[in-house]
Amino acid sequence: MIERVRGFRDSYPEDMLPRQKMFDVMRETATQFYFSQIEIPSLEYLDLYRVKSGEELLTQTFSFTDKGGRELTMIPEATPSVVRMLTSRKDLKKPVKWFCLPKLWRYEEPQSGRSREHTQFNADIFGDSSMFADAEIIGLACSTLDKLGLSGKYKVRINDRMLMEKILRDIGISNIARGYSLIDHYRKLSADDFKSQLLELCKESEKADFLLQLLGKEIKLDQLDTKFPEQFKRENEEIVSRLKNTGILVSKLTSAELVYDASVVRGLGYYTGIVFEGFDRAGEFRSIFGGGRYDNLGQLIADTPIEAVGFGMGDAVLELLLKKNNLWNLTTRAGSFAMCTVGNETIITAYELATKLRQLGYAVNVDTSQASLSNQLKKAAANSVNYTIIIGPKEIKDNVLTIRDMNSGTQVTGRMDDLEKLIESVSSKQI
Amino acid sequence: MIERVRGFRDSYPEDMLPRQKMFDVMRETATQFYFSQIEIPSLEYLDLYRVKSGEELLTQTFSFTDKGGRELTMIPEATPSVVRMLTSRKDLKKPVKWFCLPKLWRYEEPQSGRSREHTQFNADIFGDSSMFADAEIIGLACSTLDKLGLSGKYKVRINDRMLMEKILRDIGISNIARGYSLIDHYRKLSADDFKSQLLELCKESEKADFLLQLLGKEIKLDQLDTKFPEQFKRENEEIVSRLKNTGILVSKLTSAELVYDASVVRGLGYYTGIVFEGFDRAGEFRSIFGGGRYDNLGQLIADTPIEAVGFGMGDAVLELLLKKNNLWNLTTRAGSFAMCTVGNETIITAYELATKLRQLGYAVNVDTSQASLSNQLKKAAANSVNYTIIIGPKEIKDNVLTIRDMNSGTQVTGRMDDLEKLIESVSSKQI
Repeated sequence: MIERVRGFRDSYPEDMLPRQKMFDVMRETATQFYFSQIEIPSLEYLDLYRVKSGEELLTQTFSFTDKGGRELTMIPEATPSVVRMLTSRKDLKKPVKWFCLPKLWRYEEPQSGRSREHTQFNADIFGDSSMFADAEIIGLACSTLDKLGLSGKYKVRINDRMLMEKILRDIGISNIARGYSLIDHYRKLSADDFKSQLLELCKESEKADFLLQLLGKEIKLDQLDTKFPEQFKRENEEIVSRLKNTGILVSKLTSAELVYDASVVRGLGYYTGIVFEGFDRAGEFRSIFGGGRYDNLGQLIADTPIEAVGFGMGDAVLELLLKKNNLWNLTTRAGSFAMCTVGNETIITAYELATKLRQLGYAVNVDTSQASLSNQLKKAAANSVNYTIIIGPKEIKDNVLTIRDMNSGTQVTGRMDDLEKLIESVSSKQI
Repeated sequence: MIERVRGFRDSYPEDMLPRQKMFDVMRETATQFYFSQIEIPSLEYLDLYRVKSGEELLTQTFSFTDKGGRELTMIPEATPSVVRMLTSRKDLKKPVKWFCLPKLWRYEEPQSGRSREHTQFNADIFGDSSMFADAEIIGLACSTLDKLGLSGKYKVRINDRMLMEKILRDIGISNIARGYSLIDHYRKLSADDFKSQLLELCKESEKADFLLQLLGKEIKLDQLDTKFPEQFKRENEEIVSRLKNTGILVSKLTSAELVYDASVVRGLGYYTGIVFEGFDRAGEFRSIFGGGRYDNLGQLIADTPIEAVGFGMGDAVLELLLKKNNLWNLTTRAGSFAMCTVGNETIITAYELATKLRQLGYAVNVDTSQASLSNQLKKAAANSVNYTIIIGPKEIKDNVLTIRDMNSGTQVTGRMDDLEKLIESVSSKQI
């Protein structure tokens, strides 16, 4: 007996229906925001991630040397591939708005909301350095959640890497990368551990207070000014006001709550501006989506500077959140028929009718089991079909048909050739 | 500059739109045939394919030993995973009708219609050994092609492994697997090479003629009887008549032409009954789809006997065929708006309107570039949007809006708050 590989998942129909609905909403919302779909390869050279993804990610890949001696990896994130695709085309009109729905793989310990394979909704705007692009990216992520029924169930924490760099420098930290890395672990460390590590990094304990005061608080964007010392505020007015204005713009695209949170810096090394994460309000799960501005990655990967902002939204946490909110629903097939057959000879006629119904857009199951009629009808009911049709020798001899509406119980009988009329007639009899 | 890995593909929006349409048609047709979607993992233990997939396939996998010392492979075909999923659930009501759209990987020389990564439409019926299941599987594959516009552009060649085994035994071949393998190469070998290898295998040259006469011909199913010697026909009446009846059933589900072709045996080792392949009529490409009955695989993989019939339809050959028939079309977005903005101050209003439009189901692009109005309008026209709206300071001050229909050139002006009415009004003015 060969098992499923650990950390991987089999999706059966009962999960696949809401799953597909989730992907459809992602695709639909992205299209409404005028993003175009692309598809990226599942394998890339490992070098593509060496540039800027950080050491932690590199150790967590499904990577291998192929038969041609090339060091390849199953893609652990989408952004480097998307940037590679973008920079290898010189004819694209900016701004470029792309989304994709790739599978991603990470070799890490499987846990709630994190498996070794997941599908990610990924969207980016290239060639636009404005706050409008930042706002649209956050707006798209939030509108997708809104469309899935999650309005009011989540909030977005934002920060800005440039602002953080100023703060870190202001409190005397020169190793900025180390600073980000420490802040990224803020929620995983105890308050004391964090403080002692921060003091070690910035040397001057009285200055560190500014950052310690900011961290772990959710600050309304319109009150952001009040949290900074006067001089700092004056020197960084532009960054702070862009962040505030971005918040205003986002509020026109979604009703989601946006707050400033200094502890949000994102793990990946390549962010250069705004960074953000979506969280469930109850604080039960990992982040629902995350992203930011990364204006240097094109330069690093392909020696081609390109402004970029984007997000990734994994399917795993989203599924947990939808389930918790009773939104992981089976969607009933609209307009489905079960055809019961009596005797093998009736199946040819049943197939002919099924083909007509399918051409009209209906979903049709022809039961060819030759089980008893009552068993066939039971199965049809269990499948929650909308209509049943019984095809027996008598029906064929008389060229008649009975369609039964399984919800209302009404039924109509008429000539087989009048199939369309019969369907209309039984539909109109619904209460 | 890091390149794309050889044999892999980047799909840009111009290809992704028809590609997505193709996948949507597959999903839609499968649903109409009452198949339920599942999703299989991208990685499996290599052992899953050792059982019965054949040595050739094993040498063509992207396989590796993971950090835990497990021999894994990126899945080269869908069927073993689907069978693993099916046999690991004991509560499923038979027959089970499943489809999936996984990515598959093969490490082989890239060529036309075959790359190292492709997406496959895969459908199976489990727990039904009847010819009805065979017919529905072929009917689904053909109906999908019909829906894509390929009616009359392809045909289906069928055969039966049981019938072939009888023929091979009849002409004195005892190594059946060798016999299949040789026949599988019939179209790749010269007539002389094939004949000499066949004679070597069956030893008695006068008997081999029976098979040589059959091979390479497309025989109408209703004439199949006439091609066999009397005694052979009598002894194998049941198999032959099932094949003929399957043809009649399929003809009720699709208008596709079905022919008997003795050279179709399929490479994979696990087929036990009917086998079939779909080809373009011009004979230009590899097979469009292929499949058959494999009643023993459940036993081999999971020690659980289960009747099964299914097909796989790859995206690569299908794309070539659709392109050749001018069916690889960009689908225009239905109901799309371009909003041109004049001055940064207008963007908030533009965002508010865009959100309203998106809630009404439209796709909206807000141009925030602050390029000249004529450039913004040019870009909108190049994107073939249906409608444009210009938001300038005057429009905001006067609370008015002009919607222009880009096809008819008509435009309507009205109050911003009457957005819905304005859209209706401009739509009704279309010629």
